[in-house]
Amino acid sequence: MLERFHVPREQEVRVTADALQRVITDIFVACGVPADDAVTGAGVLTKTDLRGVETHGVSNMLRAYVGWFRNGQLNAKPQAKVVRETPGTATIDGDRGLGVIQGTAAMQMAIDKAREVGIGVVTMRNSGHLGAVGHFSMQAADQDMVGICLTAMSVLVLPTFGAVPRLGTNPISIAAPARSEPYLLYDAATSTIAGNKIQLARRVGANMEPGWISEPDGSPIMEERPVPDGEMYALGAQNLLPLGGTREQGSHKGYGLGLMVEVLSTLLSGTVPSMVEPNPPVASHHFAAYNIAAFDDVDHFKDSMDRMLQTLTETPPAPGHERVLYPGLPEAEEEVDRLANGIPLHEEVIEWFNQTTDEFNIARIETLS
Amino acid sequence: MLERFHVPREQEVRVTADALQRVITDIFVACGVPADDAVTGAGVLTKTDLRGVETHGVSNMLRAYVGWFRNGQLNAKPQAKVVRETPGTATIDGDRGLGVIQGTAAMQMAIDKAREVGIGVVTMRNSGHLGAVGHFSMQAADQDMVGICLTAMSVLVLPTFGAVPRLGTNPISIAAPARSEPYLLYDAATSTIAGNKIQLARRVGANMEPGWISEPDGSPIMEERPVPDGEMYALGAQNLLPLGGTREQGSHKGYGLGLMVEVLSTLLSGTVPSMVEPNPPVASHHFAAYNIAAFDDVDHFKDSMDRMLQTLTETPPAPGHERVLYPGLPEAEEEVDRLANGIPLHEEVIEWFNQTTDEFNIARIETLS
Repeated sequence: MLERFHVPREQEVRVTADALQRVITDIFVACGVPADDAVTGAGVLTKTDLRGVETHGVSNMLRAYVGWFRNGQLNAKPQAKVVRETPGTATIDGDRGLGVIQGTAAMQMAIDKAREVGIGVVTMRNSGHLGAVGHFSMQAADQDMVGICLTAMSVLVLPTFGAVPRLGTNPISIAAPARSEPYLLYDAATSTIAGNKIQLARRVGANMEPGWISEPDGSPIMEERPVPDGEMYALGAQNLLPLGGTREQGSHKGYGLGLMVEVLSTLLSGTVPSMVEPNPPVASHHFAAYNIAAFDDVDHFKDSMDRMLQTLTETPPAPGHERVLYPGLPEAEEEVDRLANGIPLHEEVIEWFNQTTDEFNIARIETLS
Repeated sequence: MLERFHVPREQEVRVTADALQRVITDIFVACGVPADDAVTGAGVLTKTDLRGVETHGVSNMLRAYVGWFRNGQLNAKPQAKVVRETPGTATIDGDRGLGVIQGTAAMQMAIDKAREVGIGVVTMRNSGHLGAVGHFSMQAADQDMVGICLTAMSVLVLPTFGAVPRLGTNPISIAAPARSEPYLLYDAATSTIAGNKIQLARRVGANMEPGWISEPDGSPIMEERPVPDGEMYALGAQNLLPLGGTREQGSHKGYGLGLMVEVLSTLLSGTVPSMVEPNPPVASHHFAAYNIAAFDDVDHFKDSMDRMLQTLTETPPAPGHERVLYPGLPEAEEEVDRLANGIPLHEEVIEWFNQTTDEFNIARIETLS
């Protein structure tokens, strides 16, 4: 599946990770972001594109971030504040900074707490889009912890049986380190698809699959179709269905998991969900780190992870499938390829980069082709 | 949907919660369980049936528990041991006790830790079936905390693209208290359905829905059908599909969430999953308590929950649906009804009770009809 959303070969332009990191940093700085923060945020987006998670890399999201900084909806120089703290927890007000930039420090705070008391949980309200939440879970895994990161933003997803969206796509991510296998890294929306996959499908001309979105009246669309043209769907995601699609196929589970994310991110950071009080483009986040050494020998844990992941990849495939994967494996393979061969961006994305850097009067992105 | 698995009226026999509590306690004691533990375990099962969660009440599971105690696979008088501990965490070896009986103390330990450091996480390996995991999440919610409870056991669920089951149904539960609305209480398997729903569907003659199980070769069955008769499915759940059913409809998400539960329950309790080393009928559990007061004012949190839950129930329904629910609401309504009118059990279940109490030479279950 990963490949169906890749940029068509004839429309791709390749760039190195260094070139991408450099231009994003420059753009953030041009938006008023302090240099250190710009480097941090650029690192998150570059790593996301290196791993092939194009829905959350520069192609879809960077232009939105720039727009929010320019129109003042996000704060380029936020003064984030810890509003409540215990040895194992903290609640932070993000002062309308960009989550992609603020997430690393928040997860590090959770990790530091976990080093002290075994487990650390940091929630953050009043912060912008967090990007690919798995990035921050991975940050914990890099430090011998299990990392969990969640975020809740906006209203795009219908509750089961509902005709009006109430939840964000509310993704769940977890990362856990292994010894010799690539990390387990799960990161996915609790809707059937991530919201910006609709835009991506439109850009590459792919059909929607059954169970992705509903008709305007809330009835699930359970057949394969092109993305509808109507105004309602013009900006991409509207009336997304919770994972499962219909009640009979388990949409109450996607809905319930979305609510779980809302509780752990939004309610536990001391605020109310967007369905109650809209506050675009602000999100709430949840960062958790479980210190593996508090639960088990770290070496034993990593060996057990290897044994589990090997059992999964050695599972006989069902007819029509080549092999069994686990979450994080295709992205790790993609990263090896992209480090060697560059990151493919759609020519439209390069055009946007050039237009933006020209406007800001900074150097254009360096391309490989 | 809840109603489709209810006992057909002409085959039901009603009992009070007290009568059920009494007979389960007696049966556990007859199995060698100490009296206090028997009362605790009976309370968990009775509450589960009161809430209408029949898949995990006495009808499906009690006979299995009795069997495991009788054949020595579970230990009626376990000596559970804390093998690793920090201020915020503990890892417990359950000494092959029954999870339904051991869960309450483990969640209380997490709650007590959360009172001290804001968050508490207790993992438990080498313990039997945990019953309805939501019960333990609710225990935390009753003490002004957000509760999460997970459990991993057995191999029944296919990984996406796989032909051989590798995961348990690995349920996720969360409970969060509100002020005047019934608690949010989500509790569901990461497979499309809970394993014992297949047995329940067979008992009441209901069809399976698309995406529940696969053919023996791993190909997802994507049409409505009766439960297959073949030997493979004779004992109920085999080749269950992860939530989503097919990759196109998001089964990689159900699969990934199942792995999340495996990591947080099995790996973080210092052991390996059943897919690596089968060890029936033993499970691994995860109990987490988030002290709401560590994150927000408890009153503000509960008010925010009320506002969210009211927004959900006031959502206009899609065509063909009466109202929008949230997880925990139908179960709370069911509990009111069952407290007033008794718990309906299938006549086959009453027969099993009578046979068992006769064998143990203890009093039969008292019925209302």
